[in-house]
Amino acid sequence: MLTQLSENLAFGGVHRRYRHSSTVLACDMVFAVFLPPQALAGAKVPVLYWLSGLTCTDENFMQKAGAQRVAAELGIAIVCPDTSPRGEGVPGDPDGAWDFGLGAGFYLNATQAPWSAHYRMHDYVVQELPALVEAALPVSDLRSISGHSMGGHGALVCALRNPGRYRAISAFSPITHPADVPWGEKAFSRYLGEDRATWAEWDASLLIAKAAEKLPLLVDQGSADSFLHSQLKPEALQAAAEAAGYPLTLRLQEGYDHSYYFIASFIEAHLRHHAAALGV
Amino acid sequence: MLTQLSENLAFGGVHRRYRHSSTVLACDMVFAVFLPPQALAGAKVPVLYWLSGLTCTDENFMQKAGAQRVAAELGIAIVCPDTSPRGEGVPGDPDGAWDFGLGAGFYLNATQAPWSAHYRMHDYVVQELPALVEAALPVSDLRSISGHSMGGHGALVCALRNPGRYRAISAFSPITHPADVPWGEKAFSRYLGEDRATWAEWDASLLIAKAAEKLPLLVDQGSADSFLHSQLKPEALQAAAEAAGYPLTLRLQEGYDHSYYFIASFIEAHLRHHAAALGV
Repeated sequence: MLTQLSENLAFGGVHRRYRHSSTVLACDMVFAVFLPPQALAGAKVPVLYWLSGLTCTDENFMQKAGAQRVAAELGIAIVCPDTSPRGEGVPGDPDGAWDFGLGAGFYLNATQAPWSAHYRMHDYVVQELPALVEAALPVSDLRSISGHSMGGHGALVCALRNPGRYRAISAFSPITHPADVPWGEKAFSRYLGEDRATWAEWDASLLIAKAAEKLPLLVDQGSADSFLHSQLKPEALQAAAEAAGYPLTLRLQEGYDHSYYFIASFIEAHLRHHAAALGV
Repeated sequence: MLTQLSENLAFGGVHRRYRHSSTVLACDMVFAVFLPPQALAGAKVPVLYWLSGLTCTDENFMQKAGAQRVAAELGIAIVCPDTSPRGEGVPGDPDGAWDFGLGAGFYLNATQAPWSAHYRMHDYVVQELPALVEAALPVSDLRSISGHSMGGHGALVCALRNPGRYRAISAFSPITHPADVPWGEKAFSRYLGEDRATWAEWDASLLIAKAAEKLPLLVDQGSADSFLHSQLKPEALQAAAEAAGYPLTLRLQEGYDHSYYFIASFIEAHLRHHAAALGV
C-alpha cells in the first residue's frame, strides 16, 4: 500500500517519505510524515496536516519550517502531501506556468475536463490520505490542518467544508478570497469553469458565513509580503469572520515576507495552537 | 564593496545574501549572514562562521538547520560562505564530479595549477571574509567556527591553524582525517600535489598534535551516517585529541544520518557551546 522511500531521524522522531497509488487522483503520489518520539514509543498521536503553496512538494515544509522540534515535544505527527497530482498523463498548465496545474492543485475537486480526471486534491487531502495514514501509521483520528499561501487557502477550505473532521485551523499568508484575486480566478475558471456561483464552495471568505462549526483559527500574515495586496487579502477573511462571529486571530507580522523564513519564525505558535485544540 | 541580493526577516533578525568581489579567490562570491535582533538594535555581536559540506552553497544551512531561533535568543550572528570559488574561469572537476572543484573547495589553499589561481578558500574564510564582514556589518571580532562534513574538516583546520582567531570549534560529521580517506586523497592530491608531507598541514587529526591553543571542541556524529566508516572516521580525531590532551567532546548520535535533519536536531547544543565560549 505505502512504499517507504526514505527515513531520517529528527529530534528523536522520524521523517519518512512514502509513495502510494492514489485512487482519488488516479496517479502515484508521494507524501512525507514526521512521527514524533511518542508515536515510535507506541502511542497513537494526533496529526497536523500541512498544505504547501504553489510550486512546492512534500519536501519544502519538512526541510525549511523547523517544525519537528516542537512537534516532537508536543507529540504531534505532521503529514505533508504534495500540491497536485503528478506523473505521466496528468496535464499541467498549457503554457508551463507555475500558478496552475502541476504544483498548483488548489485543494479543490475539478469539474472541468481535462482537469477533472486527476485534480481532486480536496478529496485526496480530506479523505484518502488520512484513511491511508491512519491505517498504516501510529496516529489517531484527531486531526488538525494548516498551510501556506495556496495551502493556507486549502487548510481553510478543507476545514470549513468538513465539520467534525478537524480540531483547529491555522494558516500563513493564505489566499483568503480566491474568487476575487488573479491566482484564484485563473485556477477556478479552469478547474471549475466560468460559472462563478460554483466558486463560492471553494472560497474561505465566502464559506465562513455558513460555517457549521467554529474552530480555533490562527492566521499569520507578513506585512512585507509581496503578494499581500494582490493575492492574499487577509482583510477579506477578517471581515467575513467578524460578520459570522467566527473566532479568527489574525496577526500582521511587521516586516516579514512570504518565505519559509517567515514560517519558521512563527511555526511554534501554530503548533501550540493546534496542540491546545488536540488536547496534547 | 558588498552588494545586497536579498533580505528576509527571521526571528526578529535578518537573513541577508551579499555578493562581493573576492581578491583572494579572484572571482565574485556570494555569502549569507544572519544578524540577530541585538545587532539590529545597535550592538556589535560575535560571529559564528558556518562551513558547509560538498555540493552546498551559502543557502543550505540558512534554509535547513533551524539555527536562527537560538542565534536570535543568544545574540550571535551567523556567516555562511560558499563552498568553493565560482564563476566563469574557475575550473571544476574535469569529470564533472561533485566531490572536487566547484562546491568542493575543501577550505585549503591550493598550490597546484590550475587550482591555485582560485582555490584559496582557507584564506578567504579565515581572513578576507571576516575582514569584510567586520567592516561592513554590526559584528565584533569575536569569532567561532563550525561546519558539516567537508565543512567540519574546514572548521577544525581553520581553527587549529590560526590560534587566537576563534573562541570555540564544533562540527557535525566532519571529515576528520582527510589524508587517509577517498574524498581527501582525491582533493589533496590535486589541490596540493602528490607529496603527502604537505597534506599534514590540512588534516585535523594530524594538526591537533601540535595545536598551540586548546579551544572547546564539540563534535556530533550520526551512527547511521553512510559515510561514517569510509570518509569521516571520528575515531581518528578522538585518538589524536586524546594523545594531545585536546578537550574534544565527541557524541555518537544513535540512528542519525548525514542529512540536515541530523544537524537541525542538534544545532541548539552547538550554538550554546559557542555562546559559552563567546561570552554571550
